[in-house]
Amino acid sequence: MDLIDGNKIAADLIAELKAEVSRLPGRKPCLALVRVGDDPASVSYVTKKEKTSAEIGITSRIILPPVTITQDELFAIIDQLNADPAVDGILVQSPLPKHIDEVAVFRRVAPEKDVDGFNTINLGKVAQEDDTAFVSCTPAGIMELLARSGTDLKGKHVVVLGRSLIVGKPVALLALQKKAGANGTVTICHSATSNLPAITRLADVLIAAIGRPEFVTADMVKPGAVVIDVGINRVPDVSKKSGYKLVGDVQFATVSPLASKITPVPGGVGPMTVAMLMKNTVKAFNLSGAR
Amino acid sequence: MDLIDGNKIAADLIAELKAEVSRLPGRKPCLALVRVGDDPASVSYVTKKEKTSAEIGITSRIILPPVTITQDELFAIIDQLNADPAVDGILVQSPLPKHIDEVAVFRRVAPEKDVDGFNTINLGKVAQEDDTAFVSCTPAGIMELLARSGTDLKGKHVVVLGRSLIVGKPVALLALQKKAGANGTVTICHSATSNLPAITRLADVLIAAIGRPEFVTADMVKPGAVVIDVGINRVPDVSKKSGYKLVGDVQFATVSPLASKITPVPGGVGPMTVAMLMKNTVKAFNLSGAR
Repeated sequence: MDLIDGNKIAADLIAELKAEVSRLPGRKPCLALVRVGDDPASVSYVTKKEKTSAEIGITSRIILPPVTITQDELFAIIDQLNADPAVDGILVQSPLPKHIDEVAVFRRVAPEKDVDGFNTINLGKVAQEDDTAFVSCTPAGIMELLARSGTDLKGKHVVVLGRSLIVGKPVALLALQKKAGANGTVTICHSATSNLPAITRLADVLIAAIGRPEFVTADMVKPGAVVIDVGINRVPDVSKKSGYKLVGDVQFATVSPLASKITPVPGGVGPMTVAMLMKNTVKAFNLSGAR
Repeated sequence: MDLIDGNKIAADLIAELKAEVSRLPGRKPCLALVRVGDDPASVSYVTKKEKTSAEIGITSRIILPPVTITQDELFAIIDQLNADPAVDGILVQSPLPKHIDEVAVFRRVAPEKDVDGFNTINLGKVAQEDDTAFVSCTPAGIMELLARSGTDLKGKHVVVLGRSLIVGKPVALLALQKKAGANGTVTICHSATSNLPAITRLADVLIAAIGRPEFVTADMVKPGAVVIDVGINRVPDVSKKSGYKLVGDVQFATVSPLASKITPVPGGVGPMTVAMLMKNTVKAFNLSGAR
């Protein structure tokens, strides 16, 4: 069994982006990070994105509206960033306060600056196999992990467990594309699937994205399968100072001996998401013709 | 084996729409049909759409630009229809002349008038399970055939043969939705699928949309499956005056004895597409609040 090292692959990608950005003659790509309020997890995510931007040479612009901001006021901020030629990418950190319609906010971001890939148009473009699409960071990161660990999906059966809008559906559409590295036969399973283990056992490549701790057990996996574990679940652990540990959607101890390759949690898909955000920001810059 | 009678189901739907439109107090829904040039198949399709509109009480407005029209001139026509409050739905008949970028034209149609469902936003909305989506007419017609023939997809394995943008992908996304009637486990196969018969034999519901005459044979179908045949292929037939006959993607003679339900060709999916276009037009009218 080979471990797919997300930390290493993300670091390689970040180093490549840094080299690419350092070669740019004029202004550097600019990423606007909008964080509403100060939810601790959001603070930590935005800080990470800001630091990685700096490491690559991407300019970041941090906008910190208060948690009391109205939806219209937030729209006004987004409209300004959409119109600003110095801004290449816009990320509005999720989750937003309950009085704000998150889907409406994501749709407000101009498609060509939507580096988070949550705008309806970018999702449609993924289905259309349009290369100007911005693919959302987790599914894009999964495809990058597969490619860089030497897994060609052509002729393979890819089983996606979970039909979420941010992982399951886009990664299924990507795996299905008529492109080098993709071209998989794709099955999508979910909570209403009958006889799930029989279906997951068909998988040459199994992508687990259902948010249920250690849900995928050895009896659900075909020997030799490539297993991508998207889950990041906290489970109680009295032996830890924090009182919890992180586990994936896959029972690593029993599944990893069966798998030909597998991602660990943490250190698998997780580190790829920020790296893909950076890649999308550089792509937005390049597609803009730097305006 | 039960035959799924597309002619009957389409006629029922048209009668329902007629009743609904007749109850409208004010102006009636209006569908703009744009046909570039006079390709005989396009003439026949547009005529059929015009006649069905009239039958229901939908006003149609026919625009017939010459085959020499430029893309910008066609855009100008679409922009005018987009802006016209008296127009609810816009259909630009495909195929367009080679000098015009069809995808760009479909994207030009305002999403809220895109009754053909080819705008990128409407495809993205299907993925997002947004009920304001306009679903393109063939996949929408397949779902209607399944629903009206009493086939609930919940817990079923739906295998879609073909990953086209106008049938395979959208019907897969629809079958997967977390909605009454849908909720299927969905597999999408295509030209690069290995061991195809083993996969199609998993299907409780098999949807064939690859455009290859009589490709699906009895060995590829599980006894008791519901079979939806989307193909409409001309094959030579000396016994016919026209010199050809129409066959589907399914070898009807050998598959139909195995199937629990099956659509014939012609008279299955085909008649549903115009009916769904009419349904979309009435939906566009309703969603507009009749402006």
